[in-house]
Amino acid sequence: MLPLELDRNAQATLQSQIYGQIRRLIVDGVVRPGMELPSTRALAVQFGIARNTVLAAYDWLLSEGYVETSQGLGTHVSWRLPEECLTIDPSTESDPVHSDRQGRREKVPTIWDTPDLVLPEIDENAPKVDFAPGKINPDCFPVRLVQRYGQDALQGIRKPLSSYRDLAGLAILRQAIADHLSTSRGMRVEAELIVVTCGIQEALNIVSRLFISAGFKVAVENPCYQSAALVFGSHGATMVPIDVDADGIVVEQVARTKARLLYVTPSHQFPTGATLTLQRRRDLLRWARDTGAYIIEDDYDSDYRYDSPPLMSLAGLDRSDSVIYLGTVSKSLGPGLRIGYLVAPPALAETAVRIKTMQTLGNQYLEQKIVSGFLLSGTYQRHLRRIRKLYLETRDAMLGRLAEHFGPLDIRGKDSGMHLMWTLPCELDDASAISKRVRQYGVQVHTIESAGAKDFGSPYRDRSLIFGYSSLTPDEARMGIDAIAKVTARP
Amino acid sequence: MLPLELDRNAQATLQSQIYGQIRRLIVDGVVRPGMELPSTRALAVQFGIARNTVLAAYDWLLSEGYVETSQGLGTHVSWRLPEECLTIDPSTESDPVHSDRQGRREKVPTIWDTPDLVLPEIDENAPKVDFAPGKINPDCFPVRLVQRYGQDALQGIRKPLSSYRDLAGLAILRQAIADHLSTSRGMRVEAELIVVTCGIQEALNIVSRLFISAGFKVAVENPCYQSAALVFGSHGATMVPIDVDADGIVVEQVARTKARLLYVTPSHQFPTGATLTLQRRRDLLRWARDTGAYIIEDDYDSDYRYDSPPLMSLAGLDRSDSVIYLGTVSKSLGPGLRIGYLVAPPALAETAVRIKTMQTLGNQYLEQKIVSGFLLSGTYQRHLRRIRKLYLETRDAMLGRLAEHFGPLDIRGKDSGMHLMWTLPCELDDASAISKRVRQYGVQVHTIESAGAKDFGSPYRDRSLIFGYSSLTPDEARMGIDAIAKVTARP
Repeated sequence: MLPLELDRNAQATLQSQIYGQIRRLIVDGVVRPGMELPSTRALAVQFGIARNTVLAAYDWLLSEGYVETSQGLGTHVSWRLPEECLTIDPSTESDPVHSDRQGRREKVPTIWDTPDLVLPEIDENAPKVDFAPGKINPDCFPVRLVQRYGQDALQGIRKPLSSYRDLAGLAILRQAIADHLSTSRGMRVEAELIVVTCGIQEALNIVSRLFISAGFKVAVENPCYQSAALVFGSHGATMVPIDVDADGIVVEQVARTKARLLYVTPSHQFPTGATLTLQRRRDLLRWARDTGAYIIEDDYDSDYRYDSPPLMSLAGLDRSDSVIYLGTVSKSLGPGLRIGYLVAPPALAETAVRIKTMQTLGNQYLEQKIVSGFLLSGTYQRHLRRIRKLYLETRDAMLGRLAEHFGPLDIRGKDSGMHLMWTLPCELDDASAISKRVRQYGVQVHTIESAGAKDFGSPYRDRSLIFGYSSLTPDEARMGIDAIAKVTARP
Repeated sequence: MLPLELDRNAQATLQSQIYGQIRRLIVDGVVRPGMELPSTRALAVQFGIARNTVLAAYDWLLSEGYVETSQGLGTHVSWRLPEECLTIDPSTESDPVHSDRQGRREKVPTIWDTPDLVLPEIDENAPKVDFAPGKINPDCFPVRLVQRYGQDALQGIRKPLSSYRDLAGLAILRQAIADHLSTSRGMRVEAELIVVTCGIQEALNIVSRLFISAGFKVAVENPCYQSAALVFGSHGATMVPIDVDADGIVVEQVARTKARLLYVTPSHQFPTGATLTLQRRRDLLRWARDTGAYIIEDDYDSDYRYDSPPLMSLAGLDRSDSVIYLGTVSKSLGPGLRIGYLVAPPALAETAVRIKTMQTLGNQYLEQKIVSGFLLSGTYQRHLRRIRKLYLETRDAMLGRLAEHFGPLDIRGKDSGMHLMWTLPCELDDASAISKRVRQYGVQVHTIESAGAKDFGSPYRDRSLIFGYSSLTPDEARMGIDAIAKVTARP
């Protein structure tokens, strides 16, 4: 008779008590391999419970391999327990190959290093008011909608989660992105040209692997999104910095380089905030057409326009298949979804999909479904409208308070996006000094470089501050500006 | 008065009807910017509804930027509508830069091509019974548990989805993986050494970026997991193939190469199924210690052992920090989760995290939480026990039927994993001929190469068939073997 103790008042069901206790007896070796278990009928009688309960517990043990049945012979403990096949044989542990300091050779050196790459850390002592660009206020995150689409996504998971499929992205998501780009960015693209990626970050790697080998020239804005410069550099690129003025990148300089790949942020130059004019867009496209170059258009925060409709994207204006367009939902929904995308010219699409496949064998399913839910239902646009309103309020509060303290301002990039640049009047100290001093008030403002840009010696580096305002309330923004006024006040 | 038509019997709430109809009037230009809306009180009286309902609808319009309020002046239509800032200005579309075939230059060539890489496609006409290795039967996918952990994950999404964090993987997941590896693979590792990746695929790219530049030698098994060879090759590696026999990779050959990076699948060599003996494991580790080389241990399907406990992993035996261990849940839970991991030796961990960051800026949150749920609750082991039992049944059915038809068999790799290799007796035709012929019966069996391996001219290429059995029922497996018997029968 098995030493079982069933407790009818316990939280665990009788079935799971029988399963658990017999399993324990088997694992502990009290009941040994080959031993027969009592019949389900006998056990049911012994404890005065339904036979079906015992049957269910035995089935459970059977399904996990603890017991076996043979026709007409009842149920016995398995000869080879699952535990033995799931945990390693401790006898193999003896006599490991010990490290021998004497005979030990220098390890192969790694070929890769990025002292520049500062890993963002969660700093619990971070300043309360941080004007870091591109951040989302968690209070604005659409929790309930994500939960709703997440629930929907969890309904049909059996096939998509148990197989490799849709390596370039879910078909419905690629189509939804194509439709979104048509209305919002003036692009007419086939879903087949879209590769869903793990954020713009992965897309930058895909483009790098398309073109960049050691010494390959890449023209970049100066200053430039640091993460892009790091990715290009890590693939061996030689960067050719191009000046940026109030109208965006200076196109004549691009033409003078021999570079045949250009990285730009035309909607809202990172970090200066400049919008590339329509004339320059045309000039850039002409350059690309005439030289056979490709343009990488990073459209990271184009979803937010405040004072005017957006210009058509380079990709929308392009008629010579010269633009590789990168987009993301990191700035509209949230970066934790890790959903971005790359739109390839037709000639590059298949290779881009192959590189994507080579990198990660497809994307996570649930987040793709969630983003599809937003795009297909129209709640994406609705969410953008709501958020845009909030950002606009914070921006205006910030600009108003800046003007109160400092009078007329040299501001760039306020019409769109999630940050703007203020070039300091000459009577004020340098950007880095102000940035340092203001921290005593629990406020963080950023220089070009601390904002996440690579500066190759631009006129903005020392005299400009970057104000990301998307994660702040109007009051927080005003408080931050007041702190700057305090640390810059002349006695 | 606004021309609204409210329908109390409609599915939509009154509040959403008011919102929707006023929004429509604004967007269509019927109600123009600057026009005042009726007071909420007046509208409530007009339709005989609660004033709170009207207030809620107005708030909605306000929150999306369609209307504005000014102190004491009521509510008017916004001067700048959100639509104008969310859709592009059509006037910018005129005169795009047209393609000019004459002036158009050759495009920059891409540097990357993989004619070898066959993208898996969803073939609706695929054979019913496919012995492809590594596939999961969707019927075995733990839908309800994933849903349960998915629901849990959706509860706390606000912060993790609205920010970049845990770039090397969720802290609880890294710890849970460390604990799992301790009991199941004999590894004592700190969570800090674990980098969560988008499957083993991404981990292979990370290792490649650590070491491989053009001409760098990588020793690989022959035959070798094709995807690994492709990744190494795409980074410029020169592959040095090493023979594989019934005991796994032939270690003396490794020592004779000048390679200082080796890729192996010791638990269940892909595709031959050999388990690397303990003696050879020690010899390999000694080689790595003495030459300063690193060993990449790809432990893709070590979760399934049938007849004996698993040997300790190379990483578990290693005392000279020479092993980079790669694991995945693709074979235990499902590949659609896209969760794998890399365990780095301490000296490489920080660089590995930097490369991971550079590639994708972190991992998707929801799937990481779901996998954590399995590992922390013990349901992971329970699921493995259940699945192992099913795979064992199919394997035994298949082996039984093979023996019935063909007598004594030259089988490798049956003790573990999800596939085995059968080397054909000489009276039978070549593997590729059998594989072709059996398709007429709706059955697919694989040669070394169609199974997804790169063969550098091994003795197995022409005479061995690979049988993945993890996605089949015992009956399907028997049916498949019967079909082989039919097409190989002598008249």
